[in-house]
Amino acid sequence: MDTSKLRINGARLRASLEEMAKIGATPAGGVQRLSLSDEDRRARDLFVKWLKEIDLEVTIDEMGTIFGRRKGKNDRLSPVMSGSHVDSQPRGGRFDGILGVMGTLEVMRTLHENKVETERPLIIVDWTNEEGSRFAPAMVASGVWAGALERDWAYARQDKEGRKQGDELVRIGYKGTVPAKKWPTYAYYEFHIEQGPMLERQGKTIGAPKGILCLHWYDVYLEGEANQVGPTPMEGRHDALCAAAEMILAVNTLPDRMQGNMVATVGEIQNYPNSRNIIPDKVHFTVDIRSWDDEHALDAWELLKKDFHEIAGRRGTPMKIEETWRVAHAPFNETLVQRVLDTAKELGYSHLHMVSGAGHDASYMNQVCPTAMIFVPSIGGRSHVEVENTAWEDCESGANVLLHCLLKTASENKEKR
Amino acid sequence: MDTSKLRINGARLRASLEEMAKIGATPAGGVQRLSLSDEDRRARDLFVKWLKEIDLEVTIDEMGTIFGRRKGKNDRLSPVMSGSHVDSQPRGGRFDGILGVMGTLEVMRTLHENKVETERPLIIVDWTNEEGSRFAPAMVASGVWAGALERDWAYARQDKEGRKQGDELVRIGYKGTVPAKKWPTYAYYEFHIEQGPMLERQGKTIGAPKGILCLHWYDVYLEGEANQVGPTPMEGRHDALCAAAEMILAVNTLPDRMQGNMVATVGEIQNYPNSRNIIPDKVHFTVDIRSWDDEHALDAWELLKKDFHEIAGRRGTPMKIEETWRVAHAPFNETLVQRVLDTAKELGYSHLHMVSGAGHDASYMNQVCPTAMIFVPSIGGRSHVEVENTAWEDCESGANVLLHCLLKTASENKEKR
Repeated sequence: MDTSKLRINGARLRASLEEMAKIGATPAGGVQRLSLSDEDRRARDLFVKWLKEIDLEVTIDEMGTIFGRRKGKNDRLSPVMSGSHVDSQPRGGRFDGILGVMGTLEVMRTLHENKVETERPLIIVDWTNEEGSRFAPAMVASGVWAGALERDWAYARQDKEGRKQGDELVRIGYKGTVPAKKWPTYAYYEFHIEQGPMLERQGKTIGAPKGILCLHWYDVYLEGEANQVGPTPMEGRHDALCAAAEMILAVNTLPDRMQGNMVATVGEIQNYPNSRNIIPDKVHFTVDIRSWDDEHALDAWELLKKDFHEIAGRRGTPMKIEETWRVAHAPFNETLVQRVLDTAKELGYSHLHMVSGAGHDASYMNQVCPTAMIFVPSIGGRSHVEVENTAWEDCESGANVLLHCLLKTASENKEKR
Repeated sequence: MDTSKLRINGARLRASLEEMAKIGATPAGGVQRLSLSDEDRRARDLFVKWLKEIDLEVTIDEMGTIFGRRKGKNDRLSPVMSGSHVDSQPRGGRFDGILGVMGTLEVMRTLHENKVETERPLIIVDWTNEEGSRFAPAMVASGVWAGALERDWAYARQDKEGRKQGDELVRIGYKGTVPAKKWPTYAYYEFHIEQGPMLERQGKTIGAPKGILCLHWYDVYLEGEANQVGPTPMEGRHDALCAAAEMILAVNTLPDRMQGNMVATVGEIQNYPNSRNIIPDKVHFTVDIRSWDDEHALDAWELLKKDFHEIAGRRGTPMKIEETWRVAHAPFNETLVQRVLDTAKELGYSHLHMVSGAGHDASYMNQVCPTAMIFVPSIGGRSHVEVENTAWEDCESGANVLLHCLLKTASENKEKR
């Protein structure tokens, strides 16, 4: 058949997204489907059921990542992969991650019902724990699969209640036996909401990021001296929360001080004993630094560490710093990025060449094979929140771009690009 | 008998304190006996058992406050009261509150075994929820008893899990039927650890505070805009945690800016959604301001509110402020304060005329009747922490001062001072 006229079924894509949004639905219209929670398990069960309905060969690896394989005409050629993640942030939205999984599923269903055969096999994937909000770091399963992270280290990562990621994989029944280890892959696409304001501001439908910013995570632990606030004079206090407050502001002004493309954020803080009439004696907070330029981000961290040491020294609050996680910036494959832009143009959608500030499993996949992403607009630029939203027609447009990118790439029968 | 030679039994006082320290004992050597918890109930049960062993008449009022009455020779005269509280801070110490209750019990036991009759009746008291760390505000039962706070308002106060103080009183079986309403009281003494460094610094054993600083509590709620940190540019962010950080530092510099005797502290903060890659959209924090001069503290608050409004306006983080609690400074009865100093001198203990920075039930009792406190040194000035400590001989000395202050005051047979 002439696949150039093929389109995905927008209504069916919407129905799948709406069905998934019921799992972990929050009263304010978002979802909470933390990695390896019962909600994650229910979403996985439904996903696997849908994969089997269209005869995909389901594999689950040691990190719980779910692969669904569709045979190619030349099944010995390396496959083209596409997917994202079904887990969410706490009080997160109904599109982040799940759109790329349901979008790829919709492509697979479209190929299935039209009996389209591709030269290369296709694989749909749901990566375990992309968000990293329950178990840090994020994108852990794609990191292990790509060989950038250690499996056993990932298993040992704990949530705030001290439960280990490896144990929770077993608990929800998704610790597979297939090694979490990369296999030859021809290309990887990830379809995702933008999570930023650029497409909306410029009135574009499809975004093709040239790559993903680097992503550096740090954990800072401060010690102060607890005491009853009333009888303890201001001079001589060692208030860990005041030290943290200064450091939070140092993080906030960092991009301005460093100039150049960069964001820096403190998203999380724990204060102890957290009683209103006790001087805080323990504070933990996180630092997130991102830039297109890895060296620039490292220089920024060196500057920030100097600030932190100066503040901790002056306030008498001993400090421990963990350099928790670093992912280098990921410049995507230029041919695939151009294919996304060209495909959008062919289908009549406006499009934008941009960068991705958010991290994605595509960062690690980019270390394994040629990779690109397809973005659609986030209304108001909002994401990781319950009001996160994307127009249904944009979801449909993005899935059509994904369909035709996959058709083109899977039709290539050379073993190497 | 000649009561001037009478002394309390230091070993028995220590044994009682050690027995109580087992209830809610923490691994690091402190106690956690939050108000109306199961640990509080167990401490109350033991306390009531001990009161009954020496034939005190036990009464429990609607706020759960426990009174133990010892008859006077002239039992129609208004009683002299002494006590403190058995509840503790989270991860608190083994002396705060409980020393005054066990010290008074030791006085009662000494009088009992020596068959000493006092002219006036004596009452030992354990006030419910002095700490205020589970249910704000602090000193709630003495506040209701003194007529400064409303009983039903106090019942409705909730802990972080949404449990009401009134319901928790019922749950632990300590919601009595006697109205929580002041009765004619001749005088009130409260024996307590200093919780500050002054006695130790000056090498004194007994402190007699001229009164308690005023105590103002505020709650600040900020709203920001949550978003994925990576794709959200720094400009245009509404980061509630950054706004809070600036406000925390404004509180910290307030005493210096206002000059004069004052302390100001942020002890508690909650940050939401508290995920390292989401810009915080909700922050709650507390403010505690204390001064000997009520007007000065109010002026400081006006200055701070201006800072807060400026910061919230500039950062685009709408703010709600609750003026949670205000207790005026409590200048104690000069005659009783002098009696503490004189008694210490007679017994051969070094002594210091000072102020109390910590709030105590004595603040509210001071509104009902002549009041004074007896302080003993806190080692290293530390309190509200597990390492809180006071030398056993100082506990004994303080209890002896209390014994003789009570004997003197309870021997006065005029109805009014």
